[in-house]
Amino acid sequence: MKNKIFFTPGPSQLYFTVEEHIKNALKKDILSISHRSKTFKILYQECVENIKILFNLNNNYHIAFTSSANEIWERIIQNLIIKTSIHYVNGSFSKKFFDYTKKYKVNSKIIESYYEPYNYNIKYSDEELIAITLNETSTGVSCPNDKIKEARLKFKNSLIALDCVSGSPAIPFEIKNVDTFYFSVQKCFGLPSGLGVWIYNNQCIDKCLKKIDKKKIVGSYHSLVKLNELGKKNQTPETPNVLGIYLLKNVINDMLKKGIKNIINETNYKSKIIDYTIKNHDQISHLIKNENIRSKTVKVAKTNKISNNLIKKLFKQNLIIGKGYGKNNYQIRIANFPTHSKENIEMLCDIISKTNF
Amino acid sequence: MKNKIFFTPGPSQLYFTVEEHIKNALKKDILSISHRSKTFKILYQECVENIKILFNLNNNYHIAFTSSANEIWERIIQNLIIKTSIHYVNGSFSKKFFDYTKKYKVNSKIIESYYEPYNYNIKYSDEELIAITLNETSTGVSCPNDKIKEARLKFKNSLIALDCVSGSPAIPFEIKNVDTFYFSVQKCFGLPSGLGVWIYNNQCIDKCLKKIDKKKIVGSYHSLVKLNELGKKNQTPETPNVLGIYLLKNVINDMLKKGIKNIINETNYKSKIIDYTIKNHDQISHLIKNENIRSKTVKVAKTNKISNNLIKKLFKQNLIIGKGYGKNNYQIRIANFPTHSKENIEMLCDIISKTNF
Repeated sequence: MKNKIFFTPGPSQLYFTVEEHIKNALKKDILSISHRSKTFKILYQECVENIKILFNLNNNYHIAFTSSANEIWERIIQNLIIKTSIHYVNGSFSKKFFDYTKKYKVNSKIIESYYEPYNYNIKYSDEELIAITLNETSTGVSCPNDKIKEARLKFKNSLIALDCVSGSPAIPFEIKNVDTFYFSVQKCFGLPSGLGVWIYNNQCIDKCLKKIDKKKIVGSYHSLVKLNELGKKNQTPETPNVLGIYLLKNVINDMLKKGIKNIINETNYKSKIIDYTIKNHDQISHLIKNENIRSKTVKVAKTNKISNNLIKKLFKQNLIIGKGYGKNNYQIRIANFPTHSKENIEMLCDIISKTNF
Repeated sequence: MKNKIFFTPGPSQLYFTVEEHIKNALKKDILSISHRSKTFKILYQECVENIKILFNLNNNYHIAFTSSANEIWERIIQNLIIKTSIHYVNGSFSKKFFDYTKKYKVNSKIIESYYEPYNYNIKYSDEELIAITLNETSTGVSCPNDKIKEARLKFKNSLIALDCVSGSPAIPFEIKNVDTFYFSVQKCFGLPSGLGVWIYNNQCIDKCLKKIDKKKIVGSYHSLVKLNELGKKNQTPETPNVLGIYLLKNVINDMLKKGIKNIINETNYKSKIIDYTIKNHDQISHLIKNENIRSKTVKVAKTNKISNNLIKKLFKQNLIIGKGYGKNNYQIRIANFPTHSKENIEMLCDIISKTNF
């Protein structure tokens, strides 16, 4: 019997080199080394340098590790917002980030628009932070590059935070248009869950310092200034997920060898195959009609019968796809991550095409 | 050449079954399953049940997973303290917890006493939370059971928080005397770092609800009420460290098979061997003279020459011991965790006895 292949939108299929890297980590005692040792500091530095190369970051940008993207939402709220923010919401995850601001008593505004491109024609009074999403994992909506640029031009005096959880590095964007962006590793990086990567620029540090000056709370071990201070020494405040950092370093190495352009091109190619399959199936159709904002990495489709019928039929063939987010029982989600080979996507699409449910 | 053995105080030698469990996790696709799936919920439930059995918890106590003990300090501050706390400090880690309260503007008090048992004869005005430490990883000081009981009797109206990071489950204590306790898994559980376990009782939940009633901030995705609400459904708010939870479940299974009493007895036996070795070596001596408060799991010894000399000599024989915490260059630390077999400890002690440095 062939092995299962996970096309779920995260956790998902492991990047195809991960198993080997885990075995090497065990051989090299990576899970036993002290997080204050020279070996760890080198590992940390290599991971950070790989991230910088992957995203072509200039010196204005810095990197910190957290335990999840949820944590990064919270750290952004604690460190980069004193009073106000605007949240463009097009799905459950961007909505969650907004909800968390309310838990922190932020005077935040929500602008909901689920299936249309962002519309920035709003009354705007220099809100401190604008939250937008590169790729909404719940609805499969992407933000095109020109819309990120437009946000930068419109909100000149605000920090712009881009949620890249299920988009990076397969969906490129112009880094210079955002002040902070972040992702978790169990999506496009094909890694075990439990690690978030937070990238922020000097403007973010300035904002955090300003908040501290005003005697506001910015958190403790994972305040931005603490993360940044320790990060400069290739250290973390707490004992971190060392395995996660080791695996991320190595998987980015593998991705760099393959070439980020190849990864992006393959993502686009596989995306078209899935789109074609969804379009031409009698029982399923795209949730996002507008191709311009349809995600290339998380495909969400409506089903004309309860989607579990299809999910189960594919499961019997060891092909695991995602259900609709939350209680969307008439939806499926298919991940198109760098670990999913063209052959695997073609096989999945071929079988979906032939499946009635 | 024999493999390295890590006697470092965490991260440390992996529990001897961990490698096998990791291989099984890979085989069983544990790293790819959805954290909202039934498979994960069962895994979560089994892990929680194992923890309850291991500590013999009654229904008054509940369990949540975080990413580190550092995070638990922060969550305790956010959720269980409105204005005041008292911190008994006998090392760098208990000091850190106190420092974090200041970052959160808590009117906290510090009572420092590094090498003596806790002295509770203080002016006390119903502070909300009393922080004590079962086992200080930096100095190797333990809190004896009668002192935990004394805290309970003295501070009747406060929540008592016990830091068990490098003590549990090898150093037993009476659970009923504390309202919350916590540990991270890279110490006595011999697991990869990146997971904290927070155990709290109903009084803690009540306190958090009281804080919410007063319109205070208790955090977002990892507020105690959110963790507790999701925990009841065998779920976590964020995508958690699934591998960590899987490994913890399995290692506790192994520990339960061995028997917690055997683990404690072995810890005590090995502790005596290390104590004897330190006492009888010309160049090293116990940092903690008072046996009543000397840790059984983290042995800290002073060295009459720079400790790196000894550390390097042992390293050449693939025996990795810890250096003094922070800048203590005339100290060593030796972990005595459940994964360290009697044979390994005997070998280490035999070699230390014969080593001049």
